[in-house]
Amino acid sequence: MDFNEHTATQAVQDSFRNTTDPRLQEVLTALTRHLHAFVRETRPSVEEWERAIQFLTAVGQACSDTRQEFVLLSDVLGVSMLVEALNEREGGTESTVLGPFHMVESPPRALGDSIDLVGEAEPCVVSGRVLSADGTPLPDAEVDVWQCNEHGFYDVQQPGVQPSGNGRGLFHTDAEGRFRFRTVVPSHYPIPTDGPVGRLLEATGRHPYRPAHIHFIVQAEGHTPLTTHVFVAGSPYLDSDAVFAVKQSLIADFARSTDEEAAARHGVQVPFRHAEFDLTLTKEPA
Amino acid sequence: MDFNEHTATQAVQDSFRNTTDPRLQEVLTALTRHLHAFVRETRPSVEEWERAIQFLTAVGQACSDTRQEFVLLSDVLGVSMLVEALNEREGGTESTVLGPFHMVESPPRALGDSIDLVGEAEPCVVSGRVLSADGTPLPDAEVDVWQCNEHGFYDVQQPGVQPSGNGRGLFHTDAEGRFRFRTVVPSHYPIPTDGPVGRLLEATGRHPYRPAHIHFIVQAEGHTPLTTHVFVAGSPYLDSDAVFAVKQSLIADFARSTDEEAAARHGVQVPFRHAEFDLTLTKEPA
Repeated sequence: MDFNEHTATQAVQDSFRNTTDPRLQEVLTALTRHLHAFVRETRPSVEEWERAIQFLTAVGQACSDTRQEFVLLSDVLGVSMLVEALNEREGGTESTVLGPFHMVESPPRALGDSIDLVGEAEPCVVSGRVLSADGTPLPDAEVDVWQCNEHGFYDVQQPGVQPSGNGRGLFHTDAEGRFRFRTVVPSHYPIPTDGPVGRLLEATGRHPYRPAHIHFIVQAEGHTPLTTHVFVAGSPYLDSDAVFAVKQSLIADFARSTDEEAAARHGVQVPFRHAEFDLTLTKEPA
Repeated sequence: MDFNEHTATQAVQDSFRNTTDPRLQEVLTALTRHLHAFVRETRPSVEEWERAIQFLTAVGQACSDTRQEFVLLSDVLGVSMLVEALNEREGGTESTVLGPFHMVESPPRALGDSIDLVGEAEPCVVSGRVLSADGTPLPDAEVDVWQCNEHGFYDVQQPGVQPSGNGRGLFHTDAEGRFRFRTVVPSHYPIPTDGPVGRLLEATGRHPYRPAHIHFIVQAEGHTPLTTHVFVAGSPYLDSDAVFAVKQSLIADFARSTDEEAAARHGVQVPFRHAEFDLTLTKEPA
């Protein structure tokens, strides 16, 4: 029988019957059903289909070693956060999106080091502990950190302006599970708007801003890795993040301090900002 | 409230509330619902989501001036044919997919010209009429033709081997609505397998072949343009086209002839092949 509106989905699903990986077959069979249902419901004209092809092509072509426009598209459509939500492990710090800026390796640094290689803004101390869900501190946990600078740009967005590795660091917790590093308070910022995802936001009247945050990936033996942010309390756009990534539990105070003694202890000048929070991992399923 | 599995879809749909183009809002609202439903059903791990991002990125990056991998992806998922089916106009020649090889303009040619610029294979004459649905011949209709050669390659796939414009021609019907050109019988061929779509077919145990065909886009004043193929009767893969594009009504005989008089009339040597068919357009809605 000819391929038509009524036979289409079954025909494509049947074409996947020889897939050796059962999970791949499951995903492609579901994709075919949902994708065809979307097409049937919206009944795109051929011109609309061509525009969709052009848009997706432009998203792919905007990707480079330092830019991931498909992650950005997944982010603004809420898909990244939905995947995070579905993989969320009860009992630990809440997770949030990876985002498109974790495409370079963070340089290994010692506890207390500064990830701010420029030193023009008010210093900020970030400290806390990595804990297991039962409260046990986790020594030698890996804490991968990346953030934009006080003007809202990541290093990879400003080659030649920011030193490579600025705002990034790979730390390991001490014997008490503690981490500590110096930085600057990140700014809220627009996601890149000069590509197809920016055009999508503009066409839909959406602002491109994300509230200020620091990214974390935390890993410790026997525990499920945690990808999350810590958001700066009081930042604009906490209630309308362009990528839907804010969770109330992830907002932390970055309080200003003029405590000379504490400043000296952390190796900064007054006034400085200080955020303190714990990051809790759940045990890997047995 | 936090963005979570249950609030996700509504939150993203709400973000499109300021879209000025109502059709864009309609499509994005439906896309969000179907895409989130797919994600909820398949519950991808973060690693699976990353693989999907990498796959889509690779599809975009495989696109160039002479290659359209996203059209290919749409084709092998049956989306292109589904869009065609939904836009099908009753009463005319059936339509089928555009395919990824219509990315260069066909050179204007006179009726009777050859689109085979190489001349190494058995000649083939293709002729017929462009008609309106009521049977009226349509003079000066534009007939845009493209096909692969006898080895299964389009000109854009073999720069330096095939002359540019080989297998392509833009014709206009005569006063009786007739078109006629010389060519070679195209071969069945694999869609490009050296990119991500090829890897998808391999992983799913699908062959990449398309049965032999000639592409047409036919346009005439007051009529809806027709995008279709004419398939070569007896070609392998007529029952398992990798892009689901075969319709029984589009299969034509490419009969071999040793008629010296006919050969002389068409400007070819015997033996030659000859396919004759009419292409019928429907009137544009008033």
